[in-house]
Amino acid sequence: MRILVINGPNLNLLGRREPETYGSDTLDDIRRRLESAWPDHRFTFFQSNHEGELIDRIHALFHAADHDALIINPGGLSHTSVSLRDALATLALPKVEVHLSNIHAREEFRHASVTAGACRGLVSGFGWLSYHLAVEALNPRV
Amino acid sequence: MRILVINGPNLNLLGRREPETYGSDTLDDIRRRLESAWPDHRFTFFQSNHEGELIDRIHALFHAADHDALIINPGGLSHTSVSLRDALATLALPKVEVHLSNIHAREEFRHASVTAGACRGLVSGFGWLSYHLAVEALNPRV
Amino acid sequence: MRILVINGPNLNLLGRREPETYGSDTLDDIRRRLESAWPDHRFTFFQSNHEGELIDRIHALFHAADHDALIINPGGLSHTSVSLRDALATLALPKVEVHLSNIHAREEFRHASVTAGACRGLVSGFGWLSYHLAVEALNPRV
Amino acid sequence: MRILVINGPNLNLLGRREPETYGSDTLDDIRRRLESAWPDHRFTFFQSNHEGELIDRIHALFHAADHDALIINPGGLSHTSVSLRDALATLALPKVEVHLSNIHAREEFRHASVTAGACRGLVSGFGWLSYHLAVEALNPRV
Amino acid sequence: MRILVINGPNLNLLGRREPETYGSDTLDDIRRRLESAWPDHRFTFFQSNHEGELIDRIHALFHAADHDALIINPGGLSHTSVSLRDALATLALPKVEVHLSNIHAREEFRHASVTAGACRGLVSGFGWLSYHLAVEALNPRV
Amino acid sequence: MRILVINGPNLNLLGRREPETYGSDTLDDIRRRLESAWPDHRFTFFQSNHEGELIDRIHALFHAADHDALIINPGGLSHTSVSLRDALATLALPKVEVHLSNIHAREEFRHASVTAGACRGLVSGFGWLSYHLAVEALNPRV
Amino acid sequence: MRILVINGPNLNLLGRREPETYGSDTLDDIRRRLESAWPDHRFTFFQSNHEGELIDRIHALFHAADHDALIINPGGLSHTSVSLRDALATLALPKVEVHLSNIHAREEFRHASVTAGACRGLVSGFGWLSYHLAVEALNPRV
Amino acid sequence: MRILVINGPNLNLLGRREPETYGSDTLDDIRRRLESAWPDHRFTFFQSNHEGELIDRIHALFHAADHDALIINPGGLSHTSVSLRDALATLALPKVEVHLSNIHAREEFRHASVTAGACRGLVSGFGWLSYHLAVEALNPRV
Amino acid sequence: MRILVINGPNLNLLGRREPETYGSDTLDDIRRRLESAWPDHRFTFFQSNHEGELIDRIHALFHAADHDALIINPGGLSHTSVSLRDALATLALPKVEVHLSNIHAREEFRHASVTAGACRGLVSGFGWLSYHLAVEALNPRV
Amino acid sequence: MRILVINGPNLNLLGRREPETYGSDTLDDIRRRLESAWPDHRFTFFQSNHEGELIDRIHALFHAADHDALIINPGGLSHTSVSLRDALATLALPKVEVHLSNIHAREEFRHASVTAGACRGLVSGFGWLSYHLAVEALNPRV
Amino acid sequence: MRILVINGPNLNLLGRREPETYGSDTLDDIRRRLESAWPDHRFTFFQSNHEGELIDRIHALFHAADHDALIINPGGLSHTSVSLRDALATLALPKVEVHLSNIHAREEFRHASVTAGACRGLVSGFGWLSYHLAVEALNPRV
Amino acid sequence: MRILVINGPNLNLLGRREPETYGSDTLDDIRRRLESAWPDHRFTFFQSNHEGELIDRIHALFHAADHDALIINPGGLSHTSVSLRDALATLALPKVEVHLSNIHAREEFRHASVTAGACRGLVSGFGWLSYHLAVEALNPRV
Repeated sequence: MRILVINGPNLNLLGRREPETYGSDTLDDIRRRLESAWPDHRFTFFQSNHEGELIDRIHALFHAADHDALIINPGGLSHTSVSLRDALATLALPKVEVHLSNIHAREEFRHASVTAGACRGLVSGFGWLSYHLAVEALNPRV
Repeated sequence: MRILVINGPNLNLLGRREPETYGSDTLDDIRRRLESAWPDHRFTFFQSNHEGELIDRIHALFHAADHDALIINPGGLSHTSVSLRDALATLALPKVEVHLSNIHAREEFRHASVTAGACRGLVSGFGWLSYHLAVEALNPRV
Repeated sequence: MRILVINGPNLNLLGRREPETYGSDTLDDIRRRLESAWPDHRFTFFQSNHEGELIDRIHALFHAADHDALIINPGGLSHTSVSLRDALATLALPKVEVHLSNIHAREEFRHASVTAGACRGLVSGFGWLSYHLAVEALNPRV
Repeated sequence: MRILVINGPNLNLLGRREPETYGSDTLDDIRRRLESAWPDHRFTFFQSNHEGELIDRIHALFHAADHDALIINPGGLSHTSVSLRDALATLALPKVEVHLSNIHAREEFRHASVTAGACRGLVSGFGWLSYHLAVEALNPRV
Repeated sequence: MRILVINGPNLNLLGRREPETYGSDTLDDIRRRLESAWPDHRFTFFQSNHEGELIDRIHALFHAADHDALIINPGGLSHTSVSLRDALATLALPKVEVHLSNIHAREEFRHASVTAGACRGLVSGFGWLSYHLAVEALNPRV
Repeated sequence: MRILVINGPNLNLLGRREPETYGSDTLDDIRRRLESAWPDHRFTFFQSNHEGELIDRIHALFHAADHDALIINPGGLSHTSVSLRDALATLALPKVEVHLSNIHAREEFRHASVTAGACRGLVSGFGWLSYHLAVEALNPRV
Repeated sequence: MRILVINGPNLNLLGRREPETYGSDTLDDIRRRLESAWPDHRFTFFQSNHEGELIDRIHALFHAADHDALIINPGGLSHTSVSLRDALATLALPKVEVHLSNIHAREEFRHASVTAGACRGLVSGFGWLSYHLAVEALNPRV
Repeated sequence: MRILVINGPNLNLLGRREPETYGSDTLDDIRRRLESAWPDHRFTFFQSNHEGELIDRIHALFHAADHDALIINPGGLSHTSVSLRDALATLALPKVEVHLSNIHAREEFRHASVTAGACRGLVSGFGWLSYHLAVEALNPRV
Repeated sequence: MRILVINGPNLNLLGRREPETYGSDTLDDIRRRLESAWPDHRFTFFQSNHEGELIDRIHALFHAADHDALIINPGGLSHTSVSLRDALATLALPKVEVHLSNIHAREEFRHASVTAGACRGLVSGFGWLSYHLAVEALNPRV
Repeated sequence: MRILVINGPNLNLLGRREPETYGSDTLDDIRRRLESAWPDHRFTFFQSNHEGELIDRIHALFHAADHDALIINPGGLSHTSVSLRDALATLALPKVEVHLSNIHAREEFRHASVTAGACRGLVSGFGWLSYHLAVEALNPRV
Repeated sequence: MRILVINGPNLNLLGRREPETYGSDTLDDIRRRLESAWPDHRFTFFQSNHEGELIDRIHALFHAADHDALIINPGGLSHTSVSLRDALATLALPKVEVHLSNIHAREEFRHASVTAGACRGLVSGFGWLSYHLAVEALNPRV
Repeated sequence: MRILVINGPNLNLLGRREPETYGSDTLDDIRRRLESAWPDHRFTFFQSNHEGELIDRIHALFHAADHDALIINPGGLSHTSVSLRDALATLALPKVEVHLSNIHAREEFRHASVTAGACRGLVSGFGWLSYHLAVEALNPRV
């Protein structure tokens, strides 16, 4: 299974930024952990702080169809971006939204997710494991 | 690992009620699937349509400490019950809230979760696999 | 026609509680009046102050299918209970929500009904006759 | 019993307009059905798409007192018209608001009824039977 | 001074409808009182329960310019009618909105006036004297 | 193509009322301009300040089916009239809502359109050209 | 008739402050105009920028009962002061709230009046004449 | 004086749950303290995590009239339960709502109390002393 | 124990103003009752209708530290005054907010208390006894 | 006439994405159709999924002034982007906002347009014809 | 340059009250620091906990015109006082609003400033330096 | 001191765009003015219309730590961008948000700043001097 993992604004700083909230793993660490845990899958990581590049990447997937599933952590865009939601809605393949922290336990303005409504489901609050769970959701070992 | 799995209102009808939304597995099917997938864990399933019994069960766990983790699907109570949230907040052990359907893709009044703020995280939208992912979250095989 | 009549919180006090608002008939009086008015129907009355028991009773109906229709007066739960709404939504048989008083002429917080959206219709404001009208709605003599 | 039955905007199209929502009976059909079901009553049907004519008709009733009760289906005016509510409030005789469809199960902006607060009660969701139930409410055969 | 006095829905019932709220004077009584108090002015009274006729009457004034000022009691339309507001805004002559009762001391939905923003000012709460005060405002005897 | 052009409250004053906002063309000017621009079409103009007459006219179209399309400028009713929206929804033929001014650039209470949701689309802000564009939309010369 | 005229914050600057909004009369000018217009009445003017002093003055009236009526222009306190409303509610004598400008035609936050609900009525928008009209309301010459 | 003391959800954990917020006294400790402080009174303590049982207990009091006053700590139900409010409203005897913590100093969703409006008064924020103060309120030693 | 008792706007009229709501005791009566009930305490009563003087008095306490506790009835300021809340927050000694009437059973705008969040707790609804209970809260006889 | 046509997020997928909502024309198809329909005009199409590039392009137009008019379909940015609105406001040349679908007939969060307020007008709901109508609006053939 | 520096409620406690939020400088310290930093200016400090006195002081400035600019820290009044805003609006000289703490980083109810809209600008969050920056804004050394 | 000055959308047009609102200085002019006023500091100006590039630039600062402080004018992003707020929150060095115009005196949707809560403070309304004041705030000459 080829899984595209899209990461939104500020996630490039993962592991260095507020580790007490987001954990000490970098995105690379997460990729390596996923590769180690799921040797039969291929993971393509993409990160951008640009809403537009995130949408472009989703569109590339729309055209190329070179992956079988999408995991997305939209970061702060999750709460406001109608454009990102529309981009996600164009894809027929399975999509899972993930968050490192529990968005329902933080500030009021982080409780709502505009983008999650265009995905199959949401995993929120488990640090890097949120990604791992999303893979499991896409390819359950049961 | 001993995991208590608490299920709220209407989940006893799982598998029979609106299968296009909630899937065709019953709670028993889910338990069996979990036991099969996680042979080293012990799962105790509890279901009630009574907010009070759900709270009682959480309290029993508070007293007995006979489980190591809690998975809860509060059903419709997720959106309104301050009491259930307060009960969850009394527990120090890891707690995961799960939903079968994607609450962010349904009616507006299902988008908010009062109870998720008292859990470690939320898994929503993967049918019975939401439970499976919660177990993985509590006991990651990585 | 076998009709289940479910009554929510505080309706056991009917006839004794604020008679100027709710009338002086008890639930038993209402049942007797219905039986007298509709001798060909069988009425099963159920009352509980417990949201959970109301849901349980609805589920029992789901399993047994021993009634042909449901009349429900959810009392104060009408305005907040997503769980009760979900329970009603599981039933395929005809459902009518009734209220003794006119909920649209009382406090603002009684104007909305979460549960009515899962019923065929609503009858509100006619005292015990609201029940009678619900029977007529289920089995019109025209 | 002489009953005035007032019908608001778009109800003249009844039977022809969106029959899957409103049924295939015309207002005339409803009148005939009521006359057949209630041979001892006299029904005067009035329909207008003009808020002002509806108020005028209510006022005529105020002056003439030539009917004993009022049934009103305000249609879309139900949700906004303070003037219609005020007109209804001038009448001492019994008033029942009816809706063909279940307003609580439709768009959010149809859930509230400004006018129902000036009536004895509300019957909503039973197609033409809503009118029949209103007659029963005004003149119960029990 | 020629003053047009426009009265909205339900004001034709003045004197007969809820006199404890609106007083026992009819519109005719008010006209006579104004004529008696202001013998040098000519008063044209117009009443309609139709929003459209009220707008038509305002437009007639726009065309004929046969009055020097306008007093309007929009009744319940005051709180919702954008169209009436727009009609008033077309007139350059002085306009005063009046209410018999004190709209700020009644139900919440009567506190706002959409139409008053298109008038010079508002007089509310003095029974028929509200009209008298409006005349004084238009033609102060000081 | 036979096109019915319905105009709501205050549009009879067009050309004379606040020309800096609405332009100096009258409705007749607009009709003549349309006839000149679209010699192959027949335009029937209808204007009323009465919500009821607007609905009646729409219903007449429903019955007679003597036009092929509908252009409507609901004026101030656009923002509040559920009844007008319901009337529009009864028609199967193409409908376009037009506004002379740009409603999104004016007061907050003019930003929402209740009626536009029952039309194919909305053209707003181009003065009399909004009507012309609506014709083009109904009968594109491309 | 002895009339106390209470003026709230910033009204001491009347005639000097934003004359295009509030007119060029000072409070003293208004008093003199009233005395001239109503030679049989006695006017006591009181102004303060202190909510507390306004309340104190109302209380003094409560104790001394040395006036027969109260006119109050609460200025900006009109929109927020529960305390001033409560003070007004203690007085049994007739009270009229006045505003120089039309509060319904200004910023949104000036549309509501907390204090008007404790008065007999409101006069708003007529410059110094608002005071004159209030006197007329208290002592109509008709 | 015989006082019934009703305690809602999670109060059975008192003394063990978040002692820094709720104190270290258990409900039993509170009962003993009250008995010691008020030897002439008899206290009946009742606790349930079930809304329904709380309502049942209130109803039992309605029937038996075996107590002279009611103290209730509705816990989290305070903020949402219309049914509990309605149950309290059926009782004529004096009722006091108590909270251990100061609900006005906690999360926004704890500031409102639906149930307090059906009681004589509210005591909030004094730990176990809130109960003691309620007794003093019911039976003041002054 | 030296207790400062601060009373806000309109409380000087206590006993004379709306006694059916606030009781017939004056502030002096309350002071005397407290002195009689609590002979070992010294009570300093302060009342002002001026928000500023209330803040000044609190500040004097901040400087002099000549009292051991504070009871405050902010009256209508309770619902709006951020400044009073900030003043209370400067004091480290125990503070109790009291209200004579039950603010949760009155108008909607009295349900919220901005100031209570800066106090230890709230006692509301027991007439003069609210003060007595506050003393008991500060100095419990148990 | 040289017209710049700016297209926001996801519009590059036009014709391939949800054709039942957006039609089967691509942006290129639209350009060709416009060129064919308007041979005397020159159309420059620009599309980006990046809010920033859209703003950059508008700025380029500000500097170069190499076009005579602007048509913009902001896509999902229409509902949230203050920055895009500000960019549009810098341009003096005529601007028209277009949408393929009828935004007033879709989800609630698509009803408002932040950007339309900075344009001359809005055309919404006519598929690719919305662009054609915008050209007609800029250069009417009448 | 003669600068009046007005300080609202609780600012007299500066340096002693919550120094972790507001710093340890007193108002006198701030004045001395300003005098030292700006030897060519004359600073008049005024502080009051009374809204009325703050307004009076602004009015005195209106009359005397003995200062060239105004710096105001309205404290908690910033968020609610329409009267203070109106007083500021009467002054033509430059006005700057300052806050010691960053109001946008504190409780929700401190984010809005009613008064800032009547000033040239706002400086918030720099402790005593906010005043210094305001002087620089009024008299830039560049 | 090395100060990075980040400017958001549309600020590249400064000096040319709506000079009556934003002044006639360009960003370059502002840089030169700052360099002239603060010869001991080094200023790096960065401007982008791309949210993503602004975040990237902040991250570069996070990595390089080649500046000692940050000044940011987020333009229209200030009111909506959670991502930008999160990026700012990653930086430990002092941050000041500036606006050229007074955001509290403009449209309602510009009053709130999502990003200011992640900065030390806010300077708004002083044209180019807002930047100068921010430097002073970071490096006070007192």
